[in-house]
Amino acid sequence: MKIVEILLVEAPHQPGTMAKVLAIIGEMKITVEGMNAIRRMHKDTVWELTIEYDDSLDMQVLVDKINDLSKAKVVGKSDRVFNRHKGGKIKTQSSIAINSLEVLRDVYTPGVARVCQAIQAEPKKIRKYTNLTNTVAIVTNGTAILGLGDIGPEAGLPVMEGKSAIFSELVDISGVPILLKEKDPLRIIETVEAIAPSFGAILLEDIKAPECFQIEAELIHRLDKPVFHDDQHGTAIVVLAALLTATRSLGVNIKDKTFGLLGLGAAGMGICTLMLQYGVKEVLGSDINENALKRLRGDGGTPMGLEELMQKADIVVATTGVKGLIKPEMIKEGQIIMPLTNPDPEIEPDIALQQGAIFASDGKTVNNMLAFPGLFRGALDAGTDKITHSMKIAAAEALSSLAKGDALVPSALDKEAHRTVARAVYDCATREK
Amino acid sequence: MKIVEILLVEAPHQPGTMAKVLAIIGEMKITVEGMNAIRRMHKDTVWELTIEYDDSLDMQVLVDKINDLSKAKVVGKSDRVFNRHKGGKIKTQSSIAINSLEVLRDVYTPGVARVCQAIQAEPKKIRKYTNLTNTVAIVTNGTAILGLGDIGPEAGLPVMEGKSAIFSELVDISGVPILLKEKDPLRIIETVEAIAPSFGAILLEDIKAPECFQIEAELIHRLDKPVFHDDQHGTAIVVLAALLTATRSLGVNIKDKTFGLLGLGAAGMGICTLMLQYGVKEVLGSDINENALKRLRGDGGTPMGLEELMQKADIVVATTGVKGLIKPEMIKEGQIIMPLTNPDPEIEPDIALQQGAIFASDGKTVNNMLAFPGLFRGALDAGTDKITHSMKIAAAEALSSLAKGDALVPSALDKEAHRTVARAVYDCATREK
Repeated sequence: MKIVEILLVEAPHQPGTMAKVLAIIGEMKITVEGMNAIRRMHKDTVWELTIEYDDSLDMQVLVDKINDLSKAKVVGKSDRVFNRHKGGKIKTQSSIAINSLEVLRDVYTPGVARVCQAIQAEPKKIRKYTNLTNTVAIVTNGTAILGLGDIGPEAGLPVMEGKSAIFSELVDISGVPILLKEKDPLRIIETVEAIAPSFGAILLEDIKAPECFQIEAELIHRLDKPVFHDDQHGTAIVVLAALLTATRSLGVNIKDKTFGLLGLGAAGMGICTLMLQYGVKEVLGSDINENALKRLRGDGGTPMGLEELMQKADIVVATTGVKGLIKPEMIKEGQIIMPLTNPDPEIEPDIALQQGAIFASDGKTVNNMLAFPGLFRGALDAGTDKITHSMKIAAAEALSSLAKGDALVPSALDKEAHRTVARAVYDCATREK
Repeated sequence: MKIVEILLVEAPHQPGTMAKVLAIIGEMKITVEGMNAIRRMHKDTVWELTIEYDDSLDMQVLVDKINDLSKAKVVGKSDRVFNRHKGGKIKTQSSIAINSLEVLRDVYTPGVARVCQAIQAEPKKIRKYTNLTNTVAIVTNGTAILGLGDIGPEAGLPVMEGKSAIFSELVDISGVPILLKEKDPLRIIETVEAIAPSFGAILLEDIKAPECFQIEAELIHRLDKPVFHDDQHGTAIVVLAALLTATRSLGVNIKDKTFGLLGLGAAGMGICTLMLQYGVKEVLGSDINENALKRLRGDGGTPMGLEELMQKADIVVATTGVKGLIKPEMIKEGQIIMPLTNPDPEIEPDIALQQGAIFASDGKTVNNMLAFPGLFRGALDAGTDKITHSMKIAAAEALSSLAKGDALVPSALDKEAHRTVARAVYDCATREK
């Protein structure tokens, strides 16, 4: 794993000293991300040196080598990632400064009583006078945190806070992490149902398959507000967007093609379902788990073995988590292929292209944070009670339409892209009402 | 109920016009809170006129009278309380600007994975690298919202958002409203227990008696983090603080006196319990509800009838909700009396004093928001798993020590007071560890 660290290096005002430091870093094949003088003293300067290195490397070796220069010395270090996590990444804040008794008496007692009564008399006023319909619970039980697996909900909190920070920064939604130490799907369903009145929508996050399917389906059924498992559908939307862009440039219509998916976990099933809804004529799927194959058949797909799928599918997406699963000789001439497993894909795109694929792209191009912010913004603004497949497709089409140049989808931090997704989802939800 | 409204009045630049408008308002016995020119046009000015009036008044009469002046006209109006509630009063926000891919990759994938792993390896790191131990759930089922009664959790949300806004403004705590549509105490306990891993502490709010007692006691028992029902103990702390200030100036020691409480609801029981813990030799209590009396006896108090209590108690606090319950002739010479029911107390303080009480003060002086912010700040900072009676007493003593002049307690918006309470609670919690 890559680690970004900041070294504080003190060196005299003497031409060439830092060049020597950089040379040592270069010899160790460590990447330099930045170098800034942060303190100029009488004879010396303190430099902040941001470096990125693989965690297999022993940093002490680098520190010793720099100190051996005798002219420069490492006077401190800090880890940028951890620095940026200090104190946590989110906060609930007052939207109004309570700096006088007048304000206090309006936003708290006695004034607030009238707002309470107004909502009691006309419940839909809650939309206007509270933050409720702008608040999304980010629910996890910590069983499938990133690629780390079942590390528990507390260890997963930094991811939930990250999602909440993204919500806030990109689409001004209040995301509230809800950590459940619970693996039984029914108890998770009941807890989320019990607290659902507190939120405008529910984002399920990093809950492992197959429990995630039952939890999401049942909550969608029980609640009259949007429920969305990002690992399934967020990824699916961005994959569909990327495929729409790729096929457009190739002059191919996805709907006429046979689609194949390797690895029917949460993401894989989400992609298959969305493809079927999009109107792809045939969706093939492969997995080592029998129940996963049954689930695919139930949803309208066709289970089959890996090799057969590779021969039959025109478009192949892989979400297996298995590096190198697709052998070069399995690639079919003219195939479109997206091996999504990070950081090491099922097959290197270059090799797939050499073997005759007309298009190949790995998981680095597919950032699932492109979907959920705009999707929730649009759904909440429209006041819809479900996130439908049409809304997901509208989001994918919006993302694809914004791709520029060689990119399959827009940049994850492009606020205009998120606004466009929100608008597309809002319009779709409004039409469906 | 008092309503604060803003009238927009357009009047020509002519001396005396606004004087006439104010005269009309004065004749109708409406209070003017402010008058500001908000737009100067060629011939006219638009004035923003903030007025406070009783909701029994027909505003249209005032508007007609102003319009009848022919020179001035009401061009708009808005309600300040509702204005200040538009869009809600709180937000979850990112603590860090996500304005580059570098930041994004540190606070979300891939960087965040290392923070997750660090917490997995050493769970207490969650305090340092997330906002968890700075986050408090504000839980209600809406059964006892202010004086409005059982209006449901949604209609109660503006109060919960108010509490959260106060947390944020005064002590930088993230308060998250949790609304439960549930009256069964056991199910409330189970739900709060299930989501407790998401929070550093639990603030129970506006849950009616007697369910509130069971819910709080059981959650304190089950959870290893602070649980606190504000309606019981927040009020109790401020009442104790006020009594400490009053008795100090009278040269009286509360502990030597017989304490009596009228009305054993949530606040009443909270006050009795705290008085017993403080060391008051005898705590008498009166209520029309038999179960309430039993509860008092179980906690070490002595149930008795209203008139007998009024004869025996040296200090009487009333939280009955019944205007005028204490007849003037019931007052005993030298009694200290706090009739707390708002807006109309059990007896007017002036009358109590005429009848021989040496001290009398009503509920306007007792603002329970003086206690909870500092109490939670101190408890969270100390990492304590319970809020003990000693911490509550420490908070009350801190508040009393800060009272200036004739005031019994400091101003609710005095940040230094909240910090002092936090410090006192922190010190107490640290000693008890």
